[in-house]
Parts: sequence; C-alpha cells; structure tokens
Amino acid sequence: MSVEVIAVGGYEEVGKNMTAIKIGEDIVIFDMGIHLDRLHIHEDTNIERMHSLDLIERGVIPDDTLMKDVDGKVRAIVFTHGHLDHIGAVAKLAHRYEAPLIATPYTMALIEKTIKGERKFKFTNPLKVLNSGENCQISKDITLEFVHTTHSIPQAVTPVLHTSAGIIVYSNDFKFDNHQTLSPPPDYQRFRELGRKGVLAAIIDTTRAAEKDQVKTHSEKIARIVLKDIMEEPLKEDNGMLVTTFASHIERIQAICNIAADSNRKILLLGRSMERYCTMAETMGILKLPENTSVYGSPKAINRALARADENRGEYILVTTGHQGEPDALLPRIANGKTMFNVQQGDNIVISAPVIPNPLNRANRNLMERRLKSSGARIFTNAHVSGHAGREDHRDFIRMLNANHLIPAHGNLEMLTAYAELAEEEGYKLGRDIHLLRNGQAQVFDGPTTGKP
Amino acid sequence: MSVEVIAVGGYEEVGKNMTAIKIGEDIVIFDMGIHLDRLHIHEDTNIERMHSLDLIERGVIPDDTLMKDVDGKVRAIVFTHGHLDHIGAVAKLAHRYEAPLIATPYTMALIEKTIKGERKFKFTNPLKVLNSGENCQISKDITLEFVHTTHSIPQAVTPVLHTSAGIIVYSNDFKFDNHQTLSPPPDYQRFRELGRKGVLAAIIDTTRAAEKDQVKTHSEKIARIVLKDIMEEPLKEDNGMLVTTFASHIERIQAICNIAADSNRKILLLGRSMERYCTMAETMGILKLPENTSVYGSPKAINRALARADENRGEYILVTTGHQGEPDALLPRIANGKTMFNVQQGDNIVISAPVIPNPLNRANRNLMERRLKSSGARIFTNAHVSGHAGREDHRDFIRMLNANHLIPAHGNLEMLTAYAELAEEEGYKLGRDIHLLRNGQAQVFDGPTTGKP
Amino acid sequence: MSVEVIAVGGYEEVGKNMTAIKIGEDIVIFDMGIHLDRLHIHEDTNIERMHSLDLIERGVIPDDTLMKDVDGKVRAIVFTHGHLDHIGAVAKLAHRYEAPLIATPYTMALIEKTIKGERKFKFTNPLKVLNSGENCQISKDITLEFVHTTHSIPQAVTPVLHTSAGIIVYSNDFKFDNHQTLSPPPDYQRFRELGRKGVLAAIIDTTRAAEKDQVKTHSEKIARIVLKDIMEEPLKEDNGMLVTTFASHIERIQAICNIAADSNRKILLLGRSMERYCTMAETMGILKLPENTSVYGSPKAINRALARADENRGEYILVTTGHQGEPDALLPRIANGKTMFNVQQGDNIVISAPVIPNPLNRANRNLMERRLKSSGARIFTNAHVSGHAGREDHRDFIRMLNANHLIPAHGNLEMLTAYAELAEEEGYKLGRDIHLLRNGQAQVFDGPTTGKP
Amino acid sequence: MSVEVIAVGGYEEVGKNMTAIKIGEDIVIFDMGIHLDRLHIHEDTNIERMHSLDLIERGVIPDDTLMKDVDGKVRAIVFTHGHLDHIGAVAKLAHRYEAPLIATPYTMALIEKTIKGERKFKFTNPLKVLNSGENCQISKDITLEFVHTTHSIPQAVTPVLHTSAGIIVYSNDFKFDNHQTLSPPPDYQRFRELGRKGVLAAIIDTTRAAEKDQVKTHSEKIARIVLKDIMEEPLKEDNGMLVTTFASHIERIQAICNIAADSNRKILLLGRSMERYCTMAETMGILKLPENTSVYGSPKAINRALARADENRGEYILVTTGHQGEPDALLPRIANGKTMFNVQQGDNIVISAPVIPNPLNRANRNLMERRLKSSGARIFTNAHVSGHAGREDHRDFIRMLNANHLIPAHGNLEMLTAYAELAEEEGYKLGRDIHLLRNGQAQVFDGPTTGKP
Repeated sequence: MSVEVIAVGGYEEVGKNMTAIKIGEDIVIFDMGIHLDRLHIHEDTNIERMHSLDLIERGVIPDDTLMKDVDGKVRAIVFTHGHLDHIGAVAKLAHRYEAPLIATPYTMALIEKTIKGERKFKFTNPLKVLNSGENCQISKDITLEFVHTTHSIPQAVTPVLHTSAGIIVYSNDFKFDNHQTLSPPPDYQRFRELGRKGVLAAIIDTTRAAEKDQVKTHSEKIARIVLKDIMEEPLKEDNGMLVTTFASHIERIQAICNIAADSNRKILLLGRSMERYCTMAETMGILKLPENTSVYGSPKAINRALARADENRGEYILVTTGHQGEPDALLPRIANGKTMFNVQQGDNIVISAPVIPNPLNRANRNLMERRLKSSGARIFTNAHVSGHAGREDHRDFIRMLNANHLIPAHGNLEMLTAYAELAEEEGYKLGRDIHLLRNGQAQVFDGPTTGKP
Repeated sequence: MSVEVIAVGGYEEVGKNMTAIKIGEDIVIFDMGIHLDRLHIHEDTNIERMHSLDLIERGVIPDDTLMKDVDGKVRAIVFTHGHLDHIGAVAKLAHRYEAPLIATPYTMALIEKTIKGERKFKFTNPLKVLNSGENCQISKDITLEFVHTTHSIPQAVTPVLHTSAGIIVYSNDFKFDNHQTLSPPPDYQRFRELGRKGVLAAIIDTTRAAEKDQVKTHSEKIARIVLKDIMEEPLKEDNGMLVTTFASHIERIQAICNIAADSNRKILLLGRSMERYCTMAETMGILKLPENTSVYGSPKAINRALARADENRGEYILVTTGHQGEPDALLPRIANGKTMFNVQQGDNIVISAPVIPNPLNRANRNLMERRLKSSGARIFTNAHVSGHAGREDHRDFIRMLNANHLIPAHGNLEMLTAYAELAEEEGYKLGRDIHLLRNGQAQVFDGPTTGKP
Repeated sequence: MSVEVIAVGGYEEVGKNMTAIKIGEDIVIFDMGIHLDRLHIHEDTNIERMHSLDLIERGVIPDDTLMKDVDGKVRAIVFTHGHLDHIGAVAKLAHRYEAPLIATPYTMALIEKTIKGERKFKFTNPLKVLNSGENCQISKDITLEFVHTTHSIPQAVTPVLHTSAGIIVYSNDFKFDNHQTLSPPPDYQRFRELGRKGVLAAIIDTTRAAEKDQVKTHSEKIARIVLKDIMEEPLKEDNGMLVTTFASHIERIQAICNIAADSNRKILLLGRSMERYCTMAETMGILKLPENTSVYGSPKAINRALARADENRGEYILVTTGHQGEPDALLPRIANGKTMFNVQQGDNIVISAPVIPNPLNRANRNLMERRLKSSGARIFTNAHVSGHAGREDHRDFIRMLNANHLIPAHGNLEMLTAYAELAEEEGYKLGRDIHLLRNGQAQVFDGPTTGKP
Repeated sequence: MSVEVIAVGGYEEVGKNMTAIKIGEDIVIFDMGIHLDRLHIHEDTNIERMHSLDLIERGVIPDDTLMKDVDGKVRAIVFTHGHLDHIGAVAKLAHRYEAPLIATPYTMALIEKTIKGERKFKFTNPLKVLNSGENCQISKDITLEFVHTTHSIPQAVTPVLHTSAGIIVYSNDFKFDNHQTLSPPPDYQRFRELGRKGVLAAIIDTTRAAEKDQVKTHSEKIARIVLKDIMEEPLKEDNGMLVTTFASHIERIQAICNIAADSNRKILLLGRSMERYCTMAETMGILKLPENTSVYGSPKAINRALARADENRGEYILVTTGHQGEPDALLPRIANGKTMFNVQQGDNIVISAPVIPNPLNRANRNLMERRLKSSGARIFTNAHVSGHAGREDHRDFIRMLNANHLIPAHGNLEMLTAYAELAEEEGYKLGRDIHLLRNGQAQVFDGPTTGKP
C-alpha cells in the first residue's frame, strides 16, 4: 500500500502548518495553523470575520483547496499542541471535512476557544480527546498514537500513525527537555521502539535547524535558574517588577510565579491572552497559581489592577503580555504611558522571551525598550530558552527513529535544507530519502517498511 | 588668546548638530539641527507647534540652555549645508541670539523655508549669504571663510575661522567626490594651504568612521553608472518605472532625470519634500530639469498625476519620496494601495538610497518591499553611494589639515572613538590631541598655533 | 529523445565543477575543476603527484567514477573558462575519456599549461579550439555553440548544445558586464534568440545567488574608477605602491597598468602565477602591457626586482600575488619581512580583491594586513567588483532564456536554494521545473522542447 | 593627598594588564600580564628567552618603562588571579622593582611556576601569600584587602586599597556567580560596605561590556547542567568521548570529572598545561579528582595513554587541551591524525569553551572541527558560560560600589566606551567621573572621598 505525504502549509514558512497523509483511501490531516506574519502586509485583515478563501489568498492560512483533488476520505484531523500556527485555522478549515478533531485535553480546550470566537463558519466536527501515551483506531487500517514529547506549551505530543504500509511519525513541534516541572521528559524509549519496528517516514519541524551551533536546546531548568538569579534580589527591594513572557508558556509562568511566591509580593497575571491561557491551565489543574495571585484579562480590570500596583509597586509583581513590543499588547502600552501604571526610576522589567526575528518585531521591541529605559526602568532580556530542538537534538532524534524517509517541515527553504544537510551527515541523501516539499507538493512512498536502505 | 569648543549637540548621536566656538569674548555657532530619530519615542511630538524647551527635553533639538552660562557674545550662526540635522532647529533656537545667520545661497533658501513654517517663534536675525570660496569678517578678531567641499546636497561648505589664536576648521558633513556634475571637487588645495598655515583645531563629522573597510567613499559617478545600467533596458519596455531617492539629493535627481531624458518617458517628481527641494534648486539654476518634467507636491496634484501614470505606465518615470518606507511618504503609500497608481506585474522600482540603519527603518522598508513584490514589482536596491567620507578619506583629510587638535563630531560614541583610533594611526593620541566631548562639555585650547607637537 | 543532466561535481560546493549531459547515447562533459578549499584539511596533499582516486576521496576533484555506470559515449569535454575550479582537474580526469577537449584559445592555453605540469598521468586527447560565436558538430545529433559572455578572466563563454531533444545551456560562470575593455558585452541578443527557440534546460552558476541585495553586479568600469581615485594621488608621491589582485584577472591587471602608465613609474608584475597568466595573455595579444613593464615569476628574479624597488620605491609600482594572504604568496611574504622589499611608513597597498569568505582566508588576510600596518603601510581594501552575476542579473538571464527547466549549479545548498527561490519569483517551482541535484545525482528530461509550462 | 591611576597595559586590548596606583609617594602595581594575540605577528617570538624591552616593543608585555618617570616607591605588586594576561609578564618585569609580590595561594603557585620557567632574568622579590578576606599593611598609609570574587579560575580576588585619600578598588577580572562548587559567591556584602564607606575610584574590567544583551552572566551551574545533558547518554555507549576546556578552569574540570565519575569510565587529563594547572590545584586541595583519574603532561606519557584509550575507547574519557584549535595543542593534533588516538565514527567531542573571537582562532577551530567531522566524530560546541561580568552584573557592581570615579580597563576602546555608556545610564558622565585612559596615560584624583557628586 502506498503512502502519500501532502505538504499543505508550513513548508515554505514558520507558520500555518498543515500536512495530509494519505494511506490507501484514508487521509489523516495534521494541524491547521495560521501564519501571523502575513497579517501585517494587508492592514485590513480581520481574521474572525473573513472567509477562508480570502485568508488563503493572503497567505494567512494553509491553502487546502488542493485537497479536493485528493482522492480519499479524511478520517481525522489531529493536532499536536495548542500554538496558533498549529490550531489557529481550525475554525476556517475544519468544518469542510467530515472528520473528528483529535487532540490532548489542553490543546482541545484551546481549539474550542478558537471555534467559539469564529464569526463566519459554523461547524459540527466531533471533538475527541486523546492523552499522550494513548492510541485510537482511526480507520480499519490506521491506528493513531500520541507519543509524549516536550515543547513550550503543555501537553504537546508527537502523533504517530501505525498502518499496514508502515509507521509514520509527525513531529511538529518539539524540544527534548528532561527537566520540565509540569511535564515528564519526552518518551525517548517509545521513539526508540518505533525506530526498531521500522518507521517509513518522519515529518520533522526544522524551526531551529539552520542555527549552526552544535548544541542541544537548553532545558527550562536553565530558564528557571536565570530567572531566579535575575529576580531574587530586586524582589527584596521596593521597586516595580514586571515580567513578560508567552501567555501560552505555562511552564515558564509557573516558574515565574514560584519565584515570586518566595517574596511577599502579590502576583498579577495581566492581559487578554494571559488570562485565556492561564485560567484554562489552572482550571485543568496544570498551572498551580500561588495564593496571592490574580488574573485579569479585560481592559477595565487590568487598569484597576495597574492603578493599585502603581501606588504600591513594591508589593506586586506584574506578569504581562507584550514581549514582542506589539503596540496593542500590555507592556508596550505601559511603556507608552497609556495605562495607569507609570514606569519609574528603579523599576525592573524582565523580558522572558526572545525577539522573534523579523524586522517588525525588532522595531517594536526596540521602541518599547527605549521608552522603558527613558522612564528609568532597568531591563533584563534573554531570560529565555527555546522550545524547539537544536541541531544535536535533531541528530539524536534521527538516530532514534531510524526512519526510511525524512521530510523536513515547518520552516523556510533555508531551514528545511539545513535539516537536510544534517540528515546527510547521518547517512541520508537529499532527493533519495530526504524530501524537500513546497506547499502544495506531495511525496509518495511505497510501504511496507523494509528497513533503511 | 584661548579657544573653547563647546559641544552643544551631535556629539552623542547622528543628528541635532550644534557647536559653539568661543574665541576670547566672541562666540560663533555652527549648525542648529534636529534629531529626527527621537520623534518616534514620543508619539505626540508636533515640532512646528512645540516650544524649544519641550523639544530639548525630548532630545529632538540641541540643548543650548548651557549657552547662557558661557561668557561672551554670539557674533554669527553659521550653517554648513541644508540637511535637517544641521538647519532643522534654526526656527526654535536662532531667535534667542542677536546674531546673523550665514550660509550659502541654497542652504539659506532652505533655512528661510524652515523659518516660514514655524508657528511658535518669531525672529529677526539678519540673513547673510556667503558663497563658497568667500570670506567675511565676523568680529575684529575673526574672519569666516567658506571652503568648498562636496556632500549629498548642493553648496555644502567647510567653514573655517581665522583668528589670532589660530585657524579652526568645522567640517560637518563632507565627502571627497571628484566627479559630481553640479559641483566641482572639494578645494583640496585650500585645505592643504590651511594645513601649512597651522590649524589649531578641527571638528570633523564621523558618520561613517566606524565602518572598518579601508576605502574612499565612492563617487556619485558610480551611482550614475549603476543607475544607468539598471534603468536603461527597462525604460525601453512598457512597464512602470518608479525611482525613489533623497529629495534633497539634487545631484542624484539630476542623474536620474538625465537617464530618463534619454528615453521618451515623461518625468514626474512627486512628493511634498521632492517639490520643496527640487523647485528651489531649479529656480536657483542648480537643477536642470528636462523639458518633459513635472513636479507635484500637493496631495491632489500628486494623485491626479498618479492616475495618469497608472493608465499609461510605459510613458512615465516617477521619482518619489519614501525611500525609507516611512508610512506617510509617497512610495510606501503607493505600495500599500492608497493612491491612484496600482503597482502591477512587471513594474520596476529603483531604490536609490540605503536603509538608514535603525530598527524602525528596517521594518518600514521590509514591509514596503514585501508589499511591492507581492504586487509583482521588481525592485532594485542599493543604487546608491554615500555622502559621507570613508575611512581613507578621513585619513587624507587628517594629513591635509595637519591640525594641532582633532575633535570628532556628529556620531555616537562608537563613531567618535572609531575616528579617534584612526587618528591615533596618524600619530595623534586620545586625551592629548584628540578630544572626546559629550553633549554639553567643552574643550579649551591655548593659541596661537605653534605646530603639531 | 531524453536528456540526462548528471551532476558530477560543484553541486555541493563552490569548486570542482563537472557536469555531464547525456543526449541519447552521446555524452558531453562540461568542466573538470578542483576544489582548492579541500586541500587544507589534508596537509600532505601534493596534487601534481597524486592519483585521481586519492584526490577524489579527499574531495579535491570531482568524483567521476560514477561515469562508468552511465551508458553512452563521451563525445567532447568542453571548458567554459580558465579558472582552476573549471579546468584544474583536467590532467587527472580527461585522459580516461576518448574525447577531444574544446575551449576558447586562452582557456586552451591554460589547459595545456596544466597538462604539462602533470606528473602522474599521460594523455592524448585531441585539443580543439573554438572561438566565442562559433559552432562545432560534436556528434550526429549535437552541435556545440560558444555564446560570448563576460567573467573575470578573458574569453569566458556559455556553451550551448543544440540537439533534437532541445537546447541545453551551461552557464558557469558569468557576470553581465557591458563595460569591459578587453571584451565586448555578453551576447544578450543570442541568449534571447535561444530563449525564443526554446531552451529545454539551463544549468546556471549560483555563486552569488544567496546575497540578498537586489542588484546587478557592478561593472569593471567601476573598479577602474575606484582604482584610479585611490591610486592617482599616491602615485605622484615618493612612497611605495603595491597592488595585489587575481593573476588571472587580465581585465583588472590591464586597468591597473593603464593607471600606472599615466605616472612615470615602472611596472613590476611579480609572482609565479602572475607571470603565468600575464605572459600568456600578452603573447596572445589580449593584455597590452605598457612599455615600462617587467614580469617576473621565478623567486630569484622577483627578489632582484624587489631589491631594486626597495631602494627607489617612488619609481615603481608592484603588482603582486597574495591577495588572500596565503602564506607562500608574494605580498604576505613581503609583509612578513621575508623578501628584499621592506615595507615602510608611507607605502600604499591596494588590495584589488575581496576576502574569499572562509575562516582561513580571513585569518591570513587579517595577519597580513596587521603586519603591513605595523610596518607603517596604508592599506586600501575592496577596490574590487565581483565576477559573478548578482540576483537581478540572474533574473534577467532567466527571462532571456525562458528555459523549461533550471538546474542551479556551482554552489552549496544555500546558494542553490537561494537561486531556486529567485526562480520561483519568476514562475518556476522547485521540484517541478527547478531541480536540486547533489553531486552524483541525475535529472532526466524528455524533449523535444514544447515551451515552458 | 592625591591619587594617580597610571594605565600601563590592558587599556587598549584584552591582555597584558598592568596598572599602577600612586598614593602620595607610594606606588602599588596591579597585575603584570602578557598579550598572547601579539605573538602571531612576529613569528620568531620566544618569550622565555627574550628581553623585556624586545617584548615591550612587540606589544607582548606592558610598556612599564614609563614607570621610571613616576616619582615614588613601589611598595607592592599585587595579582588578582592566575591567568596569563594578569601574571604572564611577572618574570620579565617584576625583578626591576624592589617590592614583594602579593597573591592568593593558587595564584602565587602559578606565579612561582612562571618564574621558574624564565631564562633571561633572575629575581629576588619576596613572595607574600594573602587569602581572600584578609588584609595586609603595604605602607604607613596603605592597607591592601583581598575581597573575594568569582571568575573562571580558583581564588580570584578583587584587591582594595584603603588609604587616607580614600578607597581604591581594582576589579579585574570578575563575574558574579552564586553557584560555583569550589568557591563561595562573591562577597557582595563587603562591596556594599565599601560603597557606603566611600570609594574614591574603581578600576573595572570591561571584557564583555560591549555585548548589548541586558543580562547577568550565566552561572557555572548552567555549564554543569548543559554538560551533563550532553554527556550522560553518550557515556553509556561504547564510543570515544573527548572533552576540551581551559586547563586553568578548575571549576569546569571538576564538573566534567564529576559527570564522568558517574559512568564507569577512566578519566585522562591530557596536555602540558592541563597537567600544570590540575596537578597544582589537586595538590592544594582545590580540585578533587575521582579515583580513576590520571593526569599526563609529557608527550610520551600522553601518547601512551592515547594508545590505550584508542583500543578501548568506551572505557575512557579524555579531557584535553586545544579548545581553540591551536595547531600544537592536543585535540587539534588528534584531529590531524598526529597521535596514537584515531578519531572514528561515533566518537563524541565536547568543546567546553567558546571561540575566543579573532580570525586566527576561528580558522583554527574551523579546521579542527572539519577534520574531526570528516573522521566521523560528533561535536558539541558552546558547552560553556563566560567568566566575565555581563552588562547587568556591571550595573549591579556600579550600584554596590557607588564610586566617585570609574576607570574602565581590560578592553579595547569599544569595550571601554561601552562600559562608559553603561555608567552614564547610572548617572556618571564620561570626562567628568568616568575616565578613558590609553596605555601610558594617567588620571589624578584628589581625595579624600567626599561622596559621589
């Protein structure tokens, strides 16, 4: 039986992931994400009110119109984790397929939120929760398994398809972190078992593959140490303390809250998406907020909280959105003097996030930092570790899976080919058993697995 | 008699140049510029309606309040050339001094325009035009000489003060270009004569001193060749042709017009500042516009012209503002679909300007270019040569002037010190005869000149 | 009839170019170059005395062992120009094929030199000179045409195969220079004609395709202007003047000599390869050396000339090898005090070459420049323009040829894919009509040409 | 009483540190280091056999000839720690002064080694050991205190002079590391006390001040975690494991040994300087080597050990010199096939050191890594944290010391001025209370301390 990997989105960019796997007559779709970077080109893009075809034309969501020419039946739409570049287009695209959505509980809760916000489309797809470590039958020939992995959001998994044509692994996104507090390490043993059984093809995210350093990505444990070394002393003093990080990065927010809890300060989690992700994570028992923590998402509540913090800045620690300096997010608005909290001499700002490298973010971050400093704040940057596998993690994964074929995904051409070069160091060859796909292209494999050539 | 060089502005940034020289009881001020980069921090800055003290606090104009503690009489305010970082604060600051403004004709015409736009202050300073190569007596002891130099705007000069304490040279800004069409080469012979007579101190702009390449800055002749090689073939075809460059760079605009004149296309010079600088330059006989050229500065006239060009794009060449992608300038507005001219497949865009390197410009340019390309345009970048001396031009100048003391100016600390290191290669020593000043600091020299130690 | 493009070498590196084209049963080989960069890994590599299989294993020459599995007869071995990465392996590989070598006169003269230096192999291949603009019948079905192009060595051509399966263009290397003095502009008209006839496949060198600037490569005319602006004044003084550039870059050496001839100085062309290339070029009437020029290649003659120049440095201009700082070349040896010429205060060094960007060259150049400067020399760098097409030249070429298929060559994966992305902007698609090959891989096309899809 | 800070060496480079402090008639010298980077320019430099004046001329050691013009008596020569850029010139310079050498025990042991290797000079200076936290009277007016700090070598101190003119702090080099295993954290409390008492002037090393990231330098704890995450799994397998790091970095070597001790492998510490530093550190009870550890420094012993390791590579872990790829050090020699240990497929190489950024190191490292990889080794780089204060550590230190005057040291002009800009953010002003000195210049302060202006 032949297997076809169809690159729908994410093969020419970091964003809008979507891959379809066709095994015989059955199709499984992985991820339906958006490409946020494309929104800036068209100023008038209002995602929630726009039709999918318009969004496709603008490059914001994957162009799945090619799916109508694929002969087969979609059996499931499977999601790896809850980041927007993996689930953000679900409300625009999923309703067209008569197939259940499958995800881990936290990812599914985020998908439900996204669907509720949708104004254009209705939909009726069944929602099926699957935990990491569990299997589920998708069609007569296909069993889906969720192998536990680690990333920068809770409950990330690497879905695996067991078929008569062989095993297919879809690993997008992941890092190998042995020291997270909310998650056990990745299930290396299972990956090795799959490798021994025989993996026909693996689709792998390449976000950091083009970084030349021959390193394994730093663990969250290192972020915890760095944050503690930065925050501990200033928390003892009377100045303001603001921390900003990814709202979805619950592991990081937990670490920040734990450090804060050792001081006597009250914790304020502030911002619309901060409330969205943290409340959900707390409700589901993933995030343990210290007692003196409040979470505010509405503009009014945020401003009231900020006014209180402004008057007694030594009693609070503010955890906010806005790490990229996005003009409408909270920290940039504070920096620009548009809130009730006035940054002043001695305040400490910890940016627990990198600059996501594009010119707009660089400009926004630069402007925000200059404003904060001109108000007298002290800024700590780079209190962060990546959520994506480094070059040497990829090498370890290649060795574990020992796949017949590798398909680099989730990157621009530079990233995909950097991964290909790494794989060539491990004995693969581009064009033979590493396959570069452009969005819209497909690669066919003949199973069953007969061992790596 | 002692000489004091007072660093008012431009010694910590590229922008807001202002230097005062005190010779005995007489003071001569050089330049009064603005620092455009600072406007972005405070969004509500409206220069024309704001008081100078507010602008000083925001870092937009030089902080000349220190001048009230300087014991002496300002005898003249002298301008080197018409760029805004040299004349832009004249309307905010000059009226406080009972002293004439002195500049070359084109520079003076631009100063007058600036004064006319001012809403806050009135002023009555006499305006005195001095041509390059001419002298004028400023006080009993001081004669001002304008030595001809080259830059990226017409009629740039290097003012020189002849005093009983020695010769002081203020060279800010300049390049050494032997092949401009609207200007003869710099007056090297005069610089060498001054060097032989004995220069006490030279204040030198360092904008490009931190660039490590051991080069002389390319001549405008090279920009002419590059532009011709780029434009010649596309002008023969039927697609649109848009060129953007600095509105004040009359030499460059002349080159572009000359290339265009060899085709049959009509030339449109478009944009508010394009009209301002070009009309003035044409009126004064500096710029020779080909017959089929029109200049439009008002939004209405621009849009009418754009509508005509849109319908017959093969018959026009558009020379516009907006080379940095500034959202309100013309080319970015065209790119964003906000004008009557629709960029389409096959159109050619020539950006005859560098990205002035700060994060905001990089973001704006990136966005503009992505928009233009997504409309199908072809872009040519870097069709440009710098207007500032390169490392080896500076070395030549140091050797010509053979000054007792060097004061690097017009740069951040990195640029000033890069210049200092260059001067040390030529036998000077930082702290001995190279002097680093911060805005607000002064350096005293004892004349008369006794030859370089 | 099917056409197969076999990537033998140069598809994973800048170096060791070799491509075989199989049309039916006939094979044409293009280029047999070496990869100099690989020599540094194995310190004991002596090319002239080593067997080809050892050199293949070390990655120094193309691995043509795969050719024995290609079913067909090699009809010709065709060379594009005389650089070592295109002809350097001829003595190691060509003798195995019963086929004539075909090249332009200057290229052929360099090939003959290479063959004479060989110690390991004998060979008997016929040598056939073909001028640019001429054709020759290679087999019943194949006609070879040499289309004139420009590069950084005389008599570079773009070979074209006319076959019943369509036209195949092999363009490796080239730039588009309309202002060389020893060569007319490329034959754009012929390229456009070929494009109209229908090009089945074009193999294109991508050396500079990864540079993001949207530019056409600067003409040699610009190097001439820059060199003149640098050299003119110092030549009038009494200090030493040393210029270093590529020995094979006859156009550049001509320009340097012409500038020198306007002074009264004697010209010394010094270094083994300087003598090799220049003497040959002069003998063939390509290079016109001014009367007061001497060329020395042997160590003894060089040292005698250097001793004379050292005593009367104001009367000479030295044009030497060693622009990369290679320890055994002349300028680095002068810098290191190992010759009779002592660099002293005031001497001028013009490096008319870029640093070819690898860590070893950077270290060697850095060391050489520091030594020269510590002896008091003034250095001018970057007096150079590239010999390879820029991004916008490639775009022009793609439009001219309008090929059905594009095969990027002569680059690492980053360069090949950068070219692919450029081609995608022009309507091609990677994997459909742009083909990435690794060394040893092949791509089959079915002719005849039916127009671009 | 006036205080004069005399910049002898290290104020224009990273290297050859030496500073003299004159208080009244008494002089204290801090550090006598070498500048290794300068050796490469003059190939024939043999330090041990050369006279100090020759070494001074070549820029290898500080030019202390200016000291003969300083009116006063040298009372002590004080060393901060045992790196060569701080102690390496002691044998060339110290004998000229009738003054004791003062250092911590480990530093003094290294100084004694250096003196023993000297071939040119004899010397008789008394050696006085002082522990961190202790004081000693240097002259009637001066008491020396050693305040404990942390760096990348054991027993680093920040010497402090207590004088009637005020307190002078000489902090060169340091990082703020709270998690070292062989050293307690820096004595922050004492620094704060000194700040409250009133520090007249502080001389501070600026090695990393030009790095823009607003960070505190990572702790060694992070290196320990990273090394363990890298090494743990491969140590379980049967392949070779080689680690290279700074021989003087005993803290790091301890960490590597501890990780290795958890496996069953024998540890080999190999290389001349590895033996020198580790044996001494072990003898003094600083380094605790696991039982199965051997240390070899002689070529013969090393090669015997390598031969054993080559045959049973799974039983050993090799800790070697050569992290910069220096051709004569051990790891590069192994990479180049010049030892009895043959790198083979599957071997793991951990480089626990950065590339010290200069072109020569980059070339050497690149060559070494390419050789290792071509033999089949896997390389892990950047398993390292810096030993120098980051930008935000410097800010903390400035706030602790609250010095009247700051003198940036141990850096090139870019680093010194980057520090100056940081200090300006904290309220200082260059030229007023931050002082840039060039080698050979001095700055005079009038004490006693009257509090920061």
